[in-house]
Amino acid sequence: MSHKEQTNEERYRQGRETLVKMVGEEGTRTIEGIRTFFPDFGDMLISFGFGDLYSRKRLDLRQREIITLTSLITQGATDQLGFHVHAALNVGLEPEDILEIVMHCAGYAGFPKACGALNVVMAVFQERSIELKLD
Amino acid sequence: MSHKEQTNEERYRQGRETLVKMVGEEGTRTIEGIRTFFPDFGDMLISFGFGDLYSRKRLDLRQREIITLTSLITQGATDQLGFHVHAALNVGLEPEDILEIVMHCAGYAGFPKACGALNVVMAVFQERSIELKLD
Amino acid sequence: MSHKEQTNEERYRQGRETLVKMVGEEGTRTIEGIRTFFPDFGDMLISFGFGDLYSRKRLDLRQREIITLTSLITQGATDQLGFHVHAALNVGLEPEDILEIVMHCAGYAGFPKACGALNVVMAVFQERSIELKLD
Amino acid sequence: MSHKEQTNEERYRQGRETLVKMVGEEGTRTIEGIRTFFPDFGDMLISFGFGDLYSRKRLDLRQREIITLTSLITQGATDQLGFHVHAALNVGLEPEDILEIVMHCAGYAGFPKACGALNVVMAVFQERSIELKLD
Amino acid sequence: MSHKEQTNEERYRQGRETLVKMVGEEGTRTIEGIRTFFPDFGDMLISFGFGDLYSRKRLDLRQREIITLTSLITQGATDQLGFHVHAALNVGLEPEDILEIVMHCAGYAGFPKACGALNVVMAVFQERSIELKLD
Amino acid sequence: MSHKEQTNEERYRQGRETLVKMVGEEGTRTIEGIRTFFPDFGDMLISFGFGDLYSRKRLDLRQREIITLTSLITQGATDQLGFHVHAALNVGLEPEDILEIVMHCAGYAGFPKACGALNVVMAVFQERSIELKLD
Repeated sequence: MSHKEQTNEERYRQGRETLVKMVGEEGTRTIEGIRTFFPDFGDMLISFGFGDLYSRKRLDLRQREIITLTSLITQGATDQLGFHVHAALNVGLEPEDILEIVMHCAGYAGFPKACGALNVVMAVFQERSIELKLD
Repeated sequence: MSHKEQTNEERYRQGRETLVKMVGEEGTRTIEGIRTFFPDFGDMLISFGFGDLYSRKRLDLRQREIITLTSLITQGATDQLGFHVHAALNVGLEPEDILEIVMHCAGYAGFPKACGALNVVMAVFQERSIELKLD
Repeated sequence: MSHKEQTNEERYRQGRETLVKMVGEEGTRTIEGIRTFFPDFGDMLISFGFGDLYSRKRLDLRQREIITLTSLITQGATDQLGFHVHAALNVGLEPEDILEIVMHCAGYAGFPKACGALNVVMAVFQERSIELKLD
Repeated sequence: MSHKEQTNEERYRQGRETLVKMVGEEGTRTIEGIRTFFPDFGDMLISFGFGDLYSRKRLDLRQREIITLTSLITQGATDQLGFHVHAALNVGLEPEDILEIVMHCAGYAGFPKACGALNVVMAVFQERSIELKLD
Repeated sequence: MSHKEQTNEERYRQGRETLVKMVGEEGTRTIEGIRTFFPDFGDMLISFGFGDLYSRKRLDLRQREIITLTSLITQGATDQLGFHVHAALNVGLEPEDILEIVMHCAGYAGFPKACGALNVVMAVFQERSIELKLD
Repeated sequence: MSHKEQTNEERYRQGRETLVKMVGEEGTRTIEGIRTFFPDFGDMLISFGFGDLYSRKRLDLRQREIITLTSLITQGATDQLGFHVHAALNVGLEPEDILEIVMHCAGYAGFPKACGALNVVMAVFQERSIELKLD
């Protein structure tokens, strides 16, 4: 099927598939909550965000999560950060990589953004009982 | 030499070495311009930015440029973007990867930021006579 | 009375009148709390914000709330959003209009800002037992 | 045809139609320039931005341009502002309404953002030889 | 005269007086340009900005310019920065103080914002033929 | 000892000394918490932030806190604000000065940022049982 003929239903199905790869069936609950409240927005989030963007080839899910985490840290979107720290770990980023992203962002977005992000990262790592391997 | 005993001179030397890897001797001119005007700031930019941050192991220069480009796009720092599009290409990111980063950022930082970034990317690609391989 | 001769007391009175139209006497409590703590700031908020800006003719209160909600969503000011979701509903914006504003902002300010805003909107709608009429 | 069965080609066609309503055939050039450089992004901008968002019913194009202008002013996206000042005038906002949006934003996003926006607005009004009717 | 009885005309006169202290008669041209285009906005900028805020006692003009420069640097408002670098020098901040503010901001708002600001500062210092006394 | 020969250990020691001047031994706990979790980041925060930046001569700690508070308010970093309201009071800023900074920022960063900041300031003043001397 060509891209031009792809329907919204197919965009949605592809988005949901990618989403499940990232956060598991259980992790889709937050987004299902949004979708129950405002269905068109929830559909768009899945079709456009996880379908049109995350499902593209060029960059793999690990690289995409590096981008996502950086963008969230830079704009101070701490509320959305926990979801993507989980996703980043699920698709194979090491916990130590995530810390390194936060540190690199300190130079680019300033230390307040990095400190704010670190609090969220710390909470997720605790929840998952992660033991860090830092030298 | 342990990290604790590393001197500012060594931090600077390491930073400059990494910087040259990223933009070549010729590419350091912008930063040398800053350093002539305000030496302490130029030194800090090199020692802290390119020494303490970019020279760390964990992530390679390609991953670090993904982070840098994303942070610049997200905060609308188009003036600083050209330098790092060059650097990103020099350390091995494909032109098509950079476009993909911009597109992914559209969802996270909004289309105006992505469009603003694309203008800069377009100018650098033209300057380097890059021919894109898009499917 | 000409604009030039308008006194601060009159600016304040006009601001307070507009404020009450927007949130009712009861809704002024948050701002009265600020005013008790730091009177000059509270006065300025009312005289300048609700007097000089909101009380101008050109745009009506519904249009002004579209602007306010958009600006708050775009800058991620979720703490100030609840107050203005209430105000927007009070001056006649439909709940479905507010959702539409959030969705439109997703394209301009990115999905994280839209999702953050939606959580606040959802809470206010619940508090007011609003039933949505979505097609 | 149901929304689910809508294809990407149809989303694109709808987006382009709305875009032409907003800026005329001639005004699509900037976006066609982006599309020539990076086709997938240009398609997405039209299908998603002008198709999925601007073409929705609930709010009319005038209300949508109030939202767009406000979001651009708030995030300091002066480069993207000119395009939408033109669009806003084309869909029926009065020049004086646009000035009023900028002024309201001064209170919410600060005076620097409002002053930056005003420079762009001034340039577009001059280009279109607009004579303001201010009291 | 009590603050309550102060009229808009007096707020404006006070604002203009403070403005002239900061940038001289000649420096008011930019703002007069805005005022010619959109009189109500220009009046508000002077009455509210330079009258209600800058003319308050508590902090002197030097401290206020530290705040203004920092806020402009942090939000990346480079277009508005030149005006206030001039003002800061006029009210008695040393050129070296301004550089120090930019450097401090690097840690809080990130290096891209600091570098962007430095370009503006450099241009103003050149225009005024300032020779720096750095150790 | 020249600046070039200064070691990381000495940068850290200087940073810690300045930090203690600002928040006391007890106030270093938050940062020690970060340092336990991610030692390299905690070290950098102290060596670079409190050593390289805050310990520089040119501006005193009071002026630096004016800059820090303004930058935090402008970027909406309310989570990091409490720490620096305490620090600002400890190094000698008057409570009324802090309120004045917030008010000045309303004009530059918008009222939502100022209101958000005021909530934090209010909480710290209550915690320290501060009685304001406002005219």
